[in-house]
Amino acid sequence: MFLSVADGKSLLMTRLITLTTDFGTRDGYVAQMKGVILRIAPDARLVDVTHEVRAFSVLEAAFVLKGIVPYFPQGTIHVGVVDPGVGTDRRGIALRTRDQFWVGPDNGLFSLLISSDSPWEAREIRNADYMPESRHPTFHGRDVFAPVAAHFASGKSFEDVGPTVDDPVCLDIPEPRITEAGIEGVIIYQDRFGNLVSNIEEARLVNPVGSIRVGNVIIGGISRFFGQVPEGEVVALVNSFGFIEIAANRQDASRVLGTGQGTPVRLQWL
Amino acid sequence: MFLSVADGKSLLMTRLITLTTDFGTRDGYVAQMKGVILRIAPDARLVDVTHEVRAFSVLEAAFVLKGIVPYFPQGTIHVGVVDPGVGTDRRGIALRTRDQFWVGPDNGLFSLLISSDSPWEAREIRNADYMPESRHPTFHGRDVFAPVAAHFASGKSFEDVGPTVDDPVCLDIPEPRITEAGIEGVIIYQDRFGNLVSNIEEARLVNPVGSIRVGNVIIGGISRFFGQVPEGEVVALVNSFGFIEIAANRQDASRVLGTGQGTPVRLQWL
Amino acid sequence: MFLSVADGKSLLMTRLITLTTDFGTRDGYVAQMKGVILRIAPDARLVDVTHEVRAFSVLEAAFVLKGIVPYFPQGTIHVGVVDPGVGTDRRGIALRTRDQFWVGPDNGLFSLLISSDSPWEAREIRNADYMPESRHPTFHGRDVFAPVAAHFASGKSFEDVGPTVDDPVCLDIPEPRITEAGIEGVIIYQDRFGNLVSNIEEARLVNPVGSIRVGNVIIGGISRFFGQVPEGEVVALVNSFGFIEIAANRQDASRVLGTGQGTPVRLQWL
Repeated sequence: MFLSVADGKSLLMTRLITLTTDFGTRDGYVAQMKGVILRIAPDARLVDVTHEVRAFSVLEAAFVLKGIVPYFPQGTIHVGVVDPGVGTDRRGIALRTRDQFWVGPDNGLFSLLISSDSPWEAREIRNADYMPESRHPTFHGRDVFAPVAAHFASGKSFEDVGPTVDDPVCLDIPEPRITEAGIEGVIIYQDRFGNLVSNIEEARLVNPVGSIRVGNVIIGGISRFFGQVPEGEVVALVNSFGFIEIAANRQDASRVLGTGQGTPVRLQWL
Repeated sequence: MFLSVADGKSLLMTRLITLTTDFGTRDGYVAQMKGVILRIAPDARLVDVTHEVRAFSVLEAAFVLKGIVPYFPQGTIHVGVVDPGVGTDRRGIALRTRDQFWVGPDNGLFSLLISSDSPWEAREIRNADYMPESRHPTFHGRDVFAPVAAHFASGKSFEDVGPTVDDPVCLDIPEPRITEAGIEGVIIYQDRFGNLVSNIEEARLVNPVGSIRVGNVIIGGISRFFGQVPEGEVVALVNSFGFIEIAANRQDASRVLGTGQGTPVRLQWL
Repeated sequence: MFLSVADGKSLLMTRLITLTTDFGTRDGYVAQMKGVILRIAPDARLVDVTHEVRAFSVLEAAFVLKGIVPYFPQGTIHVGVVDPGVGTDRRGIALRTRDQFWVGPDNGLFSLLISSDSPWEAREIRNADYMPESRHPTFHGRDVFAPVAAHFASGKSFEDVGPTVDDPVCLDIPEPRITEAGIEGVIIYQDRFGNLVSNIEEARLVNPVGSIRVGNVIIGGISRFFGQVPEGEVVALVNSFGFIEIAANRQDASRVLGTGQGTPVRLQWL
């Protein structure tokens, strides 16, 4: 571990590296990245976040990457690779914020982590000392991002990876609209259980909530957990990421409702 | 590593933590649990058992959790989270038996590990020192069970986690019926290859077996391995967990037979 | 770490063990193997390559196992188990080549690693000191190959595992045919994105390539990366394993073309 100093504050980088990709685990692509990391940083500790991001879905990965931040130790290095533009002139970036680090393509993947709440610093990946000489044009995950993360984990500095970037690409996430009557949002994520996650954060609930309309269904209020309604019935709750979520007790809400990503969600004040 | 003393016998707890859930690996839920563990116990070693348990299938997870026990080191800590009742008043428990430890909901998940053969001790998870102050009502995997396991791995005692539990919830597993003619059992698990696992343990075969009837098919006896019958043909054998299993050489027995969980299996003595 | 001396050259064996199987991750089979390894070699570091090899597809696993070699450290021990013949008299082997080690069934799984380019040494697994006394006839992955790898990682020698094997089983891979007009190859692998990998290595391109015909479609030349064609359009490129691959920009080429494994690929010289 060693220090990275930014915003006048020093920060330990750890040997803990997480991986988030849309590569699946079938083809050995992720294993190649792990081999690369372990050759450069033999003591690195690897944690798979997911390799099952929907192919090319930068938004889905951005959502997962944001969700895990509060739970990882200071100095964790996160590699994210959902990279449909690989080989084009899109930049590679390293980001530092909230006492952790990210490495990946500059395509919005980390943009949910950038906000005015926390100081951040982004760098374009340019320093050839951080990557192998030969880099395949379709696999920067293996030939650029994994090596950069491994070099961070083994002592190379964040600042030397390249020049600062002031304008990282930001995803255009639909913002919920707050009105006098309530909040109008939309389903932005569907998890493996069929739970439907909206873009409405708990912090937006400035008034007590009366009812929630999702598609054609009206739910009577916000519950605390699934088991408060009978099996198979639809329930709205604040999920473990802090967002309003539509679920069905022990069932798949997306099937019960016949809806998914893009469906409007309307909360009405009491 | 440190000692947990129970039944007059001291036991090393190791830093080895396994994870068994129905969370899938797509959404970052498991990664959140791993982050939580590594913040509390930075030297913990994590082994994923599976996150592909059928959603809400406590029985399926119980079966997997039992199957791995003989192969793990003394002092291993297993976290199991298939938890449809999360948020209700179901208890959380920690279990110690067979020189290993388990942490999860008290819904039967660990009940196949509890038997009169080995002494066991269960504790209700109650001690607030073992978990964060803020706990989300729908994600005890992250906010209760992962922290408890991490605290075990970093030195907190098993005994202090809470009061003893004498009546952990037990699953109602169908027991095979032994008759003069043979054994009547049932398929209780189907693995990824389509192999059909019955509830008949090898130890029950008190007489030599003549034939096995599964659904409408009769198999002439018990083979030692798949390749003893031609490709695609159905075979009965004692599987690597010690149970009678119906398989098809290089094919999916559940498809070949058109049957699955719940199908009766009848062994006839020779 | 310790030395294995072969071909007059000594080689460190590391504690790094990779796992490649067709077991899936649902049933606890892989976890049993990991438990076995960690009991014998508590400091082993485990990397999952994939457990999603198509069931019984030795060729698919052989391809993945070859692809990862250049990226792993010297002394890495790779366990490969795709083993439809388990229980029959097929041998188990340990292989040493390219400064790394492999353990698994002798059914061709490692045959793409054996070539005249690099010295290699294979041994039949026979020494009972490297495995438990009781071995289940259908699960050598757990009862033979995992223990052998673990014993390698904890100091037992490569040479003592058993007698040398001069004739390991080799897969019959279709070889591309080079003519005056071009090269005639075939699709031998389809990855998770639907990219179609041919058996034509970049090194075979002895002349500049004019066009590529795959099924009924003709592609105008070899691109460097996906984004050089419009979204959804088909592109040929040298993939990150060094083979000619047919892809579709941000889409699934196997669906766009309606083709897959076995489809002829014809490169025409310019």
